[in-house]
Amino acid sequence: MEMKHQITSQENNFVFLLKTSLKGISQVILIENVITGFIILLAISISSILLGIITLLSAVIGTLIGKSLGADEDILNQGLFGYNSVLTGMALALFLSGPSHWIIALAGAAITAIFTASMMHLMKKMELPILTFPFILTTWFMLLVSYRLTAFTLSPELVPQSLAQWELDIAGEVNWIQGSFNGVSQIFFLDNPISGALLFLAVFWADWKIGVYAILGNAVSLITSYGLGGEHSLIFIGLYGYNAILTIIAVSTFYKNEENRFALLSGIIAASLTVLATASVSSWLLPFGLPTLTMPFVIVTWIFLGARKVLPLL
Amino acid sequence: MEMKHQITSQENNFVFLLKTSLKGISQVILIENVITGFIILLAISISSILLGIITLLSAVIGTLIGKSLGADEDILNQGLFGYNSVLTGMALALFLSGPSHWIIALAGAAITAIFTASMMHLMKKMELPILTFPFILTTWFMLLVSYRLTAFTLSPELVPQSLAQWELDIAGEVNWIQGSFNGVSQIFFLDNPISGALLFLAVFWADWKIGVYAILGNAVSLITSYGLGGEHSLIFIGLYGYNAILTIIAVSTFYKNEENRFALLSGIIAASLTVLATASVSSWLLPFGLPTLTMPFVIVTWIFLGARKVLPLL
Amino acid sequence: MEMKHQITSQENNFVFLLKTSLKGISQVILIENVITGFIILLAISISSILLGIITLLSAVIGTLIGKSLGADEDILNQGLFGYNSVLTGMALALFLSGPSHWIIALAGAAITAIFTASMMHLMKKMELPILTFPFILTTWFMLLVSYRLTAFTLSPELVPQSLAQWELDIAGEVNWIQGSFNGVSQIFFLDNPISGALLFLAVFWADWKIGVYAILGNAVSLITSYGLGGEHSLIFIGLYGYNAILTIIAVSTFYKNEENRFALLSGIIAASLTVLATASVSSWLLPFGLPTLTMPFVIVTWIFLGARKVLPLL
Repeated sequence: MEMKHQITSQENNFVFLLKTSLKGISQVILIENVITGFIILLAISISSILLGIITLLSAVIGTLIGKSLGADEDILNQGLFGYNSVLTGMALALFLSGPSHWIIALAGAAITAIFTASMMHLMKKMELPILTFPFILTTWFMLLVSYRLTAFTLSPELVPQSLAQWELDIAGEVNWIQGSFNGVSQIFFLDNPISGALLFLAVFWADWKIGVYAILGNAVSLITSYGLGGEHSLIFIGLYGYNAILTIIAVSTFYKNEENRFALLSGIIAASLTVLATASVSSWLLPFGLPTLTMPFVIVTWIFLGARKVLPLL
Repeated sequence: MEMKHQITSQENNFVFLLKTSLKGISQVILIENVITGFIILLAISISSILLGIITLLSAVIGTLIGKSLGADEDILNQGLFGYNSVLTGMALALFLSGPSHWIIALAGAAITAIFTASMMHLMKKMELPILTFPFILTTWFMLLVSYRLTAFTLSPELVPQSLAQWELDIAGEVNWIQGSFNGVSQIFFLDNPISGALLFLAVFWADWKIGVYAILGNAVSLITSYGLGGEHSLIFIGLYGYNAILTIIAVSTFYKNEENRFALLSGIIAASLTVLATASVSSWLLPFGLPTLTMPFVIVTWIFLGARKVLPLL
Repeated sequence: MEMKHQITSQENNFVFLLKTSLKGISQVILIENVITGFIILLAISISSILLGIITLLSAVIGTLIGKSLGADEDILNQGLFGYNSVLTGMALALFLSGPSHWIIALAGAAITAIFTASMMHLMKKMELPILTFPFILTTWFMLLVSYRLTAFTLSPELVPQSLAQWELDIAGEVNWIQGSFNGVSQIFFLDNPISGALLFLAVFWADWKIGVYAILGNAVSLITSYGLGGEHSLIFIGLYGYNAILTIIAVSTFYKNEENRFALLSGIIAASLTVLATASVSSWLLPFGLPTLTMPFVIVTWIFLGARKVLPLL
C-alpha cells in the first residue's frame, strides 16, 4: 500500500510538472491556463517539431529549478518560473547554430530560471512585475558569448552594423492580412498564419477579452508603424506587433483598481508607444547585432505600471 | 451666481495652470518661482519665439497630465511635473528637423510626464530625487527612433562616430567672457550672451545665493576643463559648464543638515567632477551620435546625494 | 602628560589607518585580515614597487575619506571603504600613461570612495553587497575621459574595435601550470608566478578553506574556457580565471544558512558561468575599448545571491 501511495505521489508529481510547465508556456502571453499552454505548444510544433520539444523542455527545466531549490509554491504553480526559460530556450535555439546549439539553449533556460529568481527579489522591492526581462538579458548575454568562445556559433542573420553606415529603406510589400496574424506569432518567434490562428485560439480559449486586446494592440501597432514610416518588411512580418500585444494586455489589466476607468485607453497609448520603443531599441542594438526581443514591451510596461503608482487615474 | 462661480473656478484653474507651468520652467534650474520661470521663458523667446512657445506648451502638457491623472497636489504645485517635459520638448524641437518635428517634441513632453511619474515611484524607494533623468532617457530614446521611422528626421549635427576613428583636437579660440555667460544659457540649449544675462537675472531674483553658486560652479568648470585640456570650442560655448552649475546647486543645497558645514565644498568638488563626467559620457555616446544633455549632472549628483546618506559629513 | 596622550592617540590613529588600509587590500579577495593584506602588498610590490605604493596610498585614501566624512565605524574597520579604491588606483595606474597618470589614479581612488558610499546606500535597499561595482564603473568612466581631455592618456593596449570586424582566433600556447597561478594574480592585474604563489600564501594564511575554493574556482574556469574554445592567450594568462575565483568565494560563503548544503556546488556552477560572462562582457565592451575588469564576477554573484533570497536551497 505504501508503494502504491508512492507511485501515486510520483504520478502526481509528473502531472504537476506537466501542468505547471504548460502554464509556464501560456504565461509568455500573460495567461495562466494549461489548455492555452498546450495549444501554444501545438502552434510551435506545427512550425517545427524540434522547436516544440525545446519549448517544453525549457519550461520543464525552469519549473524544476524553482521546485527543487525551494521557490514559493504559489508562484511556482502559476507557471511564473517557466515563461522566461521558455523564451530563452526558443530564442537561443533560433539565433544560434552549430551542432550543440540546442544544449546551449537548454543551459540558457536553466540560467534564466536563476536570473528569474534574482529579478523577483529585486522587482518585489520596486513593486513591479519582472515581465520578460530575465529572458531578454540572458539571451543577449548568451548571443554575445559567440564572439569569444568557439562552442557558440551565431546565426548569420545577426550582423553588427555601425549606426553611421545605416540607411533606412522602408519599401516593401504591404500585406495587412499577413500582418494581422504575424504579430501574435512573433511573440513565439513564428511567422506562419496557421500558427497565428492557433495562437489566437489559445488566447480566446483562456479569455475572450484578452483576445480582443491582442487584436486591438496589433492593429494599433500596424497603423502606428505604417503611419510613421516603418520598414514594410518588418511591419507585415509582425515585428512591430508582438510587443504592442503584450503591452496592451499588461497595461490594461495589471494593478487595475476601480479608479482606472481608462485603463484600456492607457493600454492603447502604451501599445502605440511600443512602436517608437521598437525603433529606438533596434537602433541602439545595431552596433552589437542583437535582436530587439521583448525589450520594448518591458520598457513601456514598466514605465506605465510604475507611473500608475503615482498617477492613480492612468 | 452659480455660473459666475464656475467662471471664477475656471479662471482659477487657468491661473493655477499658468503659475504651475512657469514654476515647471524654473524647476529646470532647481528653483520654484513663478517670476523666475517667466524671465527664463523670456530669455528663451528672445533667442527663438517658436522655441519659447514649445517651452511653455511642454510645461503645460506635463502639468496637465499630472493634474488630470491624479498626481499628488503638493508635488504638482511645485512644478515638479513640468521641468522634465520642458527639457524634452526643447531638446526634441532642436535636435529633430522636418515639418512635424514640433508635434514630436510635444508628444515627447507628454511621454516624459508619464516617465517622470514612473521615476518618482522608483526613486522614492532609493530616497534620491529624479533630477532630469526622465528628460535625458526620453530624449535619447526619441532621437534613436529616427534611424527606423521616416517620420522622425535627425538634425544633421548629430552624427554617430566610431571611437576608434575619433581624434581629439582641442585648438580653438579662448573667450572667458563668453564662457561665463554660456554655461547657464546651455542649461536651456542657448548660446547667446543676452539670454545668459537674463537667466542670471532669473536666478538672482529667486535667491542670490543660488546665483552665486551658479557663477561659482561655472567658474570651476571653466578652470577644470581648460586645465585638463578640453576642446576650446566646447568649453567656451558653455558645454562643460551647464552640468557643473546644476550640480553645485543640487549638491550644496539638497539633503543638507546641520552637520554639513562643508556642503559648498562638496558642491565645488562635485562641479569639477562633472567635467570628467561630461568627457566620459560624450565618449560613451559617440557611436550612437547622441548629445550628452544633463547626464553628467544626474550621475555626479546621484553619487554625492547617495553618498551623503552613508557619509553624513559630506 | 596631555601631550603624551595626544601622541599616543596619534600613534593609535596611524596604526588604525595602516591596519584598516591593509584590511582594505585584503578585502579585494573578500578577506578581512591585516597580514593577508600585507602579503598581497608584498606580492604587488615585487612586481612593481611603484604599483605597490599606489596600492597602499589608494587604500589609505579610501579609508581616510570614509573616516573623515563620518562613515559607520564597523564598516570602516572591516576595510570595506578601501578595496574598491585600491582596485581603481591600480587599474588607472596601469591603463593610463603619461606623466601625471599616478595623480589621476589617486584621484580615481578618492572618487571611488564616494561612489562606494553611494552604492552602499543603494545596495542596502536591494539587500545585496556592493562587491567591486564602484571600482568597475569609476575605472571605465575615467578611461573614457581620455578621448576628450588631453590630461588623460590611454595606454596603447586599449583599442576600440568594431564587433563587425572582430575575428576570433583561439590558437596559442597551452600552459596549465602558468594558468594555475595566473588566475589569482590577475585579481591584482599581475601575471607573474612568484606573485601568484605569494597571493595563494596570503589567502591560505587567512583561511585554508578559501584557499581551496580559489584553486577550485580557477580550475573550473580553466576547464570551462578551454572546453568551450576560448583564446589560449587569454586563458593561460589568467584572464578567464580571476572572476571565477572571486565568484566561487562569494557564492559559496555569503548569505549562507543551514539550508544551503549545496552552496559549494552553487559556487562551482557560478564560477563556470563567469567564463560565459567574461566572453559576453568583453564582446559588449569591444566598441568602447574598455577592459572587462571584475564585471563578470559582479554580474554572476549578484544574480546568485539575489536568487538565493527566492530560492533558499540554492
